[in-house]
Amino acid sequence: MSLGIAIGARVRKSPYFDKTLEDGVTSFSVYNHMYMPTGYGDPEAEYNRLINGVAMWDVAVERQVSLKGPDAEKLARYLTSRNLGALNIGQGRYVPICDHRGTLINDPVLLPISEDEYWLSIADSDVLLWSRAISAERGFDVQIHEPDVSPLAIQGPKAVEVVADLFGDWIRELKYFGHREARLNGIPLHVARSGWSKQGGYELYLEDSARGAELWDLVKEAGQPYDIGPGTPNYIERLESGLVSYGADTDDFTNPYEVGLGKFVSLDREDDFIGKQALTEINEQGPRRQFVGYKIEGEALSAGNQHKWPVKDGEVYVGFVSASAWSPRVKSNIGVGLVETAYSEPGSKVTIQTDAADGDLEAVVSKLPFDIPA
Amino acid sequence: MSLGIAIGARVRKSPYFDKTLEDGVTSFSVYNHMYMPTGYGDPEAEYNRLINGVAMWDVAVERQVSLKGPDAEKLARYLTSRNLGALNIGQGRYVPICDHRGTLINDPVLLPISEDEYWLSIADSDVLLWSRAISAERGFDVQIHEPDVSPLAIQGPKAVEVVADLFGDWIRELKYFGHREARLNGIPLHVARSGWSKQGGYELYLEDSARGAELWDLVKEAGQPYDIGPGTPNYIERLESGLVSYGADTDDFTNPYEVGLGKFVSLDREDDFIGKQALTEINEQGPRRQFVGYKIEGEALSAGNQHKWPVKDGEVYVGFVSASAWSPRVKSNIGVGLVETAYSEPGSKVTIQTDAADGDLEAVVSKLPFDIPA
Repeated sequence: MSLGIAIGARVRKSPYFDKTLEDGVTSFSVYNHMYMPTGYGDPEAEYNRLINGVAMWDVAVERQVSLKGPDAEKLARYLTSRNLGALNIGQGRYVPICDHRGTLINDPVLLPISEDEYWLSIADSDVLLWSRAISAERGFDVQIHEPDVSPLAIQGPKAVEVVADLFGDWIRELKYFGHREARLNGIPLHVARSGWSKQGGYELYLEDSARGAELWDLVKEAGQPYDIGPGTPNYIERLESGLVSYGADTDDFTNPYEVGLGKFVSLDREDDFIGKQALTEINEQGPRRQFVGYKIEGEALSAGNQHKWPVKDGEVYVGFVSASAWSPRVKSNIGVGLVETAYSEPGSKVTIQTDAADGDLEAVVSKLPFDIPA
Repeated sequence: MSLGIAIGARVRKSPYFDKTLEDGVTSFSVYNHMYMPTGYGDPEAEYNRLINGVAMWDVAVERQVSLKGPDAEKLARYLTSRNLGALNIGQGRYVPICDHRGTLINDPVLLPISEDEYWLSIADSDVLLWSRAISAERGFDVQIHEPDVSPLAIQGPKAVEVVADLFGDWIRELKYFGHREARLNGIPLHVARSGWSKQGGYELYLEDSARGAELWDLVKEAGQPYDIGPGTPNYIERLESGLVSYGADTDDFTNPYEVGLGKFVSLDREDDFIGKQALTEINEQGPRRQFVGYKIEGEALSAGNQHKWPVKDGEVYVGFVSASAWSPRVKSNIGVGLVETAYSEPGSKVTIQTDAADGDLEAVVSKLPFDIPA
C-alpha cells in the first residue's frame, strides 16, 4: 500500500523541505502542523548510518514555544512537574508537562535562552495554546510565541566530529542538553547537544528559516569525510533505546509515572505546579500501567504498527504495542507500549494481536532499553 | 512529485479508514492528529459529484470536544466571543474561539447535546487542551474529553434524498446546524444538517467507532440510486464558496474581524469572554487585513498552493494566497487569502508570486463567495 500525502498551506513546510526532496525523501508524516520526513527509501542504510556513522535529520517539527518576559521563569516552573532548581542559561532540561488531571500532554526540552526567555522544544501537541491559556488566566507577564527556529539534527557516533569541524572543539565540552549561540557563515543558530536517539549527536537550532537550504548544504559538505547521509528520527533505534514517542506511546490517560518519568515529578516541591494534586493521588495509588519493551516471537514482522495493537492475556486486554520492528542488533522482533502493571515485570508472557498478515504472536515483556548483544 | 505518507500509531486512523482504502483513496493529510482523506484520484469526478449529485466524505477528523457537567454551559459561553443567547438542545451554532490576544485559535460548531453536555466540533488545533486549561484554572466544574464520535459527511444537492431514504422525511425539517439523535440498524449516531461545503448536506456523527465500516456501507448502498461516490472536503468548491480553512487561511495574528467573523464578536455582551478586551481594541482600530478572493489571470494553474504565496503591490508585500485552483464554474483561476485592508476592495489589482512553474501572475481582488455564471 503506497499512499500519497497532500501538500497544502495548512501544514507547514520545513526550511529544509526542498533540500530533503533533493536528497530523495520518500515519505512524510505531520508533526506540530508541519511536514516531517520519515524516510528516504533505504531504511537499512538509514539505520546503519545512525548506529555506525552519522546522519542528518530535518527535525524542524520540533517547534519552539518561547516564553519571554518578567514572569517567563515563573511560568516555566508552573508548567512542569519537575523541580528545576537553579536554571542556568545554556543548559537545557527535559520537562514533562501535565494537565490538571496529571495526564502527560507533552514532554519538551526547556532551553534557558536568557534571563527572561525560555524555549520549550516540543513534541506533537499545541503547547503554544496551552501555555497562553495558563499564562493569561494567571495574569502572568509573559509574551508567548513561536520563534523562527528550526532544528537540524546530526546524529550518530561520528556526529561529534562533523560538528567539531564546523564549529570548533568547544562543542565537545557541551553537556547533554547544553546549548550555545553560534554562527555558521553568518547563519544565526544555537548548537545543542541533543537529539532523539541514544547514538549521540547535536541539533542546530537554525534561527533564520530563509537560510535553511544553506545550512543543510554546509552540514552535508562538512559531513562528507564521515560519509554523512540523510535520515529521520529512527523507528528501530528508538525502540531498541526505549525512547518514548509522545502521542504514539501515550493516550489521554497516560501519566508520567507510567512512562518512566516519575523521577521528574517533584511532589515535595513547595511551590505549586499544574497537576500537583492529581499526581499526588496517582502516586499514592501507584501507576496502573508501565511503558515496557516486548520481545516478539518469529520471523521478521511483515509490517510495523499502523495503529496500537492490543496486548492480551488469553482473551483479556492488558495493554498495547504502539511500535514494533525487527531489530538487527537485538536479533528479534521488538516493540514498545503500555501494559498493566501486573504484567510489567520482565519475563511476563503476553499475546500481541497484530494486523492481518502476522496474526497473533506470543511475546515476552522486556526492560528498556533492550540489551544489545556485543 | 508523488510523496508517500507514513502510517503509524501517533496519528490516528478514522473508523472509515479501511473503507476509504477499499474505495480507492489515494492521498491523505493529517488533521487533529488523525489521517484525513484528501483525494480518490479523480478530482474532476469528485468535484462534479459534489456540485451536481452526492458524495460521501470521511470527516472523522472533525473531532468532538465534549464539555460535560454543571458548568459546561458557562464554559462554552466563556470560550467564544459569540453571544449565544438561548441555547437549544439540537440546534448547533458556529462559534469562533479566540485566545486572550483576540487571535482566532479555532472555529468550531457548538452542538448542545443535553442540558449539561456540549460538543465542540473542531478544526485543526488542540481545543481539548485549551478548554481544559481554561476550565481548570477558572475552577469550573466540567469534565472535558474527546468522545468516540466520528462524522461522515453526505454532501451535494442530492444528499437530502439519500439521508431521507435512510432516516425518514423528518431530516428535511432540520435547520442548518440542527441535529438529532438517531439509530441506523442500531448504530448510535446524531444526524446533523451541516458540512464543509455550500452544496447542502448532512453529517452523521457516528458514536461507535467499531461500526464505522457498517455505517459506510449503509450510506453507500442508500446512495446507489443517486450515484453516490467517495469524496473529500473539496479544494475547489470551498474556494468558490469562500469557506475559511482554519490554519491554511489564518496565521498567529488572525482575528475574527479579518476573516468575516466580526458578526460573531459580541462586544456588547455583559458577561466576560476570552479575548474581549483585545477584540475591543482591535475593533476600535479596525482590522489590518481582510479575507478575500483573487481572480488570477491566465490558463489553468499548473498546481495549487503548497504553501502561502506572497501577494504584492510592486515590490511591497501586502498579503498572501493560501489556496488556489482553476474553477470550472467561475471559468478562471481563483484563490483566497488575507490581504491588507487597503487592497481588500473588489477590483484591487495585485501580483501573486506563485511557485516556479507559473511565475508571477496578475490578479484582481474579488468578493466571496465568487459569482458563479448561470
